Amino acid sequence: MNIEIINTGNELMLGRVLNTHQQWLCRQFADAGYVVTRQVAVADTAVAIQQAVREALTRARLIVCTGGLGPTSDDLTRDAIAELVGRPLREDPAIVAALEAWYAARQRTPSPAVMLQAQVPEGATVLPNANGTAPGLLMEVRVKEGGVGTGSSWLVMLPGPPRELRPMFTAHVLPWVKATFPLAAPFVCRTLRSTGVPESTMQQQIAGPLAALVARGLEIGYCARPGEVDVRLVARGPLASALVTEAEAIVRREVGRSLYGVEGESLEAAVVRELTGRRQSLAVAESCTGGRIANRVTDVPGASEVFWGGFITYSNALKERLLGVRAETLAAHGAVSEATAREMAEGARARTGADYALAATGIAGPGGATPDKPVGTVLIALAGPESTEVVRMLNAFDRDTFKHVTSQQALELLRQRLLTQRCAPPTP
Amino acid sequence: MNIEIINTGNELMLGRVLNTHQQWLCRQFADAGYVVTRQVAVADTAVAIQQAVREALTRARLIVCTGGLGPTSDDLTRDAIAELVGRPLREDPAIVAALEAWYAARQRTPSPAVMLQAQVPEGATVLPNANGTAPGLLMEVRVKEGGVGTGSSWLVMLPGPPRELRPMFTAHVLPWVKATFPLAAPFVCRTLRSTGVPESTMQQQIAGPLAALVARGLEIGYCARPGEVDVRLVARGPLASALVTEAEAIVRREVGRSLYGVEGESLEAAVVRELTGRRQSLAVAESCTGGRIANRVTDVPGASEVFWGGFITYSNALKERLLGVRAETLAAHGAVSEATAREMAEGARARTGADYALAATGIAGPGGATPDKPVGTVLIALAGPESTEVVRMLNAFDRDTFKHVTSQQALELLRQRLLTQRCAPPTP
Repeated sequence: MNIEIINTGNELMLGRVLNTHQQWLCRQFADAGYVVTRQVAVADTAVAIQQAVREALTRARLIVCTGGLGPTSDDLTRDAIAELVGRPLREDPAIVAALEAWYAARQRTPSPAVMLQAQVPEGATVLPNANGTAPGLLMEVRVKEGGVGTGSSWLVMLPGPPRELRPMFTAHVLPWVKATFPLAAPFVCRTLRSTGVPESTMQQQIAGPLAALVARGLEIGYCARPGEVDVRLVARGPLASALVTEAEAIVRREVGRSLYGVEGESLEAAVVRELTGRRQSLAVAESCTGGRIANRVTDVPGASEVFWGGFITYSNALKERLLGVRAETLAAHGAVSEATAREMAEGARARTGADYALAATGIAGPGGATPDKPVGTVLIALAGPESTEVVRMLNAFDRDTFKHVTSQQALELLRQRLLTQRCAPPTP
Repeated sequence: MNIEIINTGNELMLGRVLNTHQQWLCRQFADAGYVVTRQVAVADTAVAIQQAVREALTRARLIVCTGGLGPTSDDLTRDAIAELVGRPLREDPAIVAALEAWYAARQRTPSPAVMLQAQVPEGATVLPNANGTAPGLLMEVRVKEGGVGTGSSWLVMLPGPPRELRPMFTAHVLPWVKATFPLAAPFVCRTLRSTGVPESTMQQQIAGPLAALVARGLEIGYCARPGEVDVRLVARGPLASALVTEAEAIVRREVGRSLYGVEGESLEAAVVRELTGRRQSLAVAESCTGGRIANRVTDVPGASEVFWGGFITYSNALKERLLGVRAETLAAHGAVSEATAREMAEGARARTGADYALAATGIAGPGGATPDKPVGTVLIALAGPESTEVVRMLNAFDRDTFKHVTSQQALELLRQRLLTQRCAPPTP
């Protein structure tokens, strides 16, 4: 079954925005056992959109179009496709009511252009938008409609903003795909997420033990990003589930301590889950990460149960004033030192009363390096009920990657401590 | 002139990696006055690559293919294209020598597969790779070669790794494009970035005043993301520069106070720039944003000149202990209240000594709502030398968007204050 994605937007073709829809949609399909065969991006013109859709209709059974459903003059997808396939647009009273309610709830008045979003091609199914105003659309295009194609194809139109597209796809499109185009054979995909192990090391450690399962049809995929490696285990056919279950057990046996989650779970979510289960609390003292650790932890719903807060001490003055780092420590060792990191973490723990405190101090760059402390040098400290530990890392990346990888290492330091505590609780 | 990009890779179609080539290449072309008309991604199979190239040859004068030039079994682009256009591959002695030198310099022995990279389609020009082993290729495909197309098209093949592709494109491809396809007429593109104005309102405010320029060839594009709208002004021809300059002046006249930057500049960068110019400093006290404001500010290189740090006070206890919010205030008004926001900002300003302090307290959701404080309710306070102001917003979004939009509103509150100060300096 051929699936194609068409992304529309002048801002894509002018290189103004990154096309995150491609990766996200391809991944959703792949994890459900479907593979996208082609993705196309074109500008926001009726001619370009119609040409791309017309060509896709000759090849694909399912076509997902993104963008161009909003209220402004460059939102042409709905009209262009309705014209291409010869379906008149009609105002949908349910969408009108939903739009009026949406604006009323926000105490705003809709402009007349907003109501263009209530126009629906004849015969199309409306996909509700829980996070915005433009509804999605789903329609079957039969033989030779629009002068192209053989048999019938399905067109799905989704709004461009990711926070609208993603929930709509998950709630309405994927379940419909699974029901309408059931897979010929079972398909099982399991993604195990790890941090702290380079991709080549991961492969060295698990490829041998998994070889017998690969001979029986298991596929292994590795996907490395800064600070983490995903291991993807895939199998098809009647034995798919058994193969993947056995493979997961082997990977857990070999590298279990490095695995923090499955599928889409983030490291911060794993840490919040661990702390919640133990009824323990966390605080932070961030210098070079500038709030990245706290921001990640508070991205997790329910984080307020375990995360109390903390300090961002970008300046040395605030390291002293807010955390009690001693002036002598800063003078003798500098802000980027094991001693400062230790005093930051211990100061944050004492001043907040949290069970654990994470601290990070380092050189994010591009400026600030010294001969013995190159850009990327970072000290990460964890203060807890038992002890304080400090690790030194060299994260020689661009500024954004530096902050991400450092926050990853800090959260992993805490996760490893919690794992150790769970295995061997301290004697009271 | 039609330009198309073809990105190849199974990992793209499985959604394992983000296609950054599209944005980067499109932007390089756009900034030089060329526009990519279509981008296609397909899997690493000879059939898929040949089909995509065959179709592109019917439309495009220039086709840029990325990926699939390396030495492994899934690197099929060179062979697939040579076969499609009927050009035999020949070993290029200069590439053989370069590969041998590359491996010798690293004290490694090239495997036989590595030498496949020295195979060049007859008549192709070799583009040296300064950062890897796979050379790029450039070739003209004349009328009906490969059985398709009319006239002649140019094919450029670039290696997949960004750190190889980007320098090769900049050094060898773009200068060749400019020399081979000189622009018929000037091209000017200007992006103005705004916040605080919804997309439909923006269009209502500027479309009328710009109508006369649109009639003369100006193109207007809107790109909305949560909390911001980009306005893109594009024109071609001898009057392009004058049209865009005039259009920018009109947009600035109509909505100037909402414009924080041009091209790729972020709101946080604009705020850091303003503060740096005034030699003033900022601190934060974040509850519901959980460090997002600080994280964004510290993403800006040089932020340490103006950003001192601050507090994350997720719990009420820390609002009292770290910021001095009064227990009576919390009891009488609750944590999500104007009075608490005010005391948070003033407490952060007093305790850090910074010129300005931003505070945010609200309900990010999904939990925590009360009848008179629905999810999305947020109070943002700005304490400064002159006064403290508090605004109440309703950001009824998912958790991540709530944090982003709230941080956007907080930074904009500060930027507006700085603008006001710049226009009317306080009497000493």
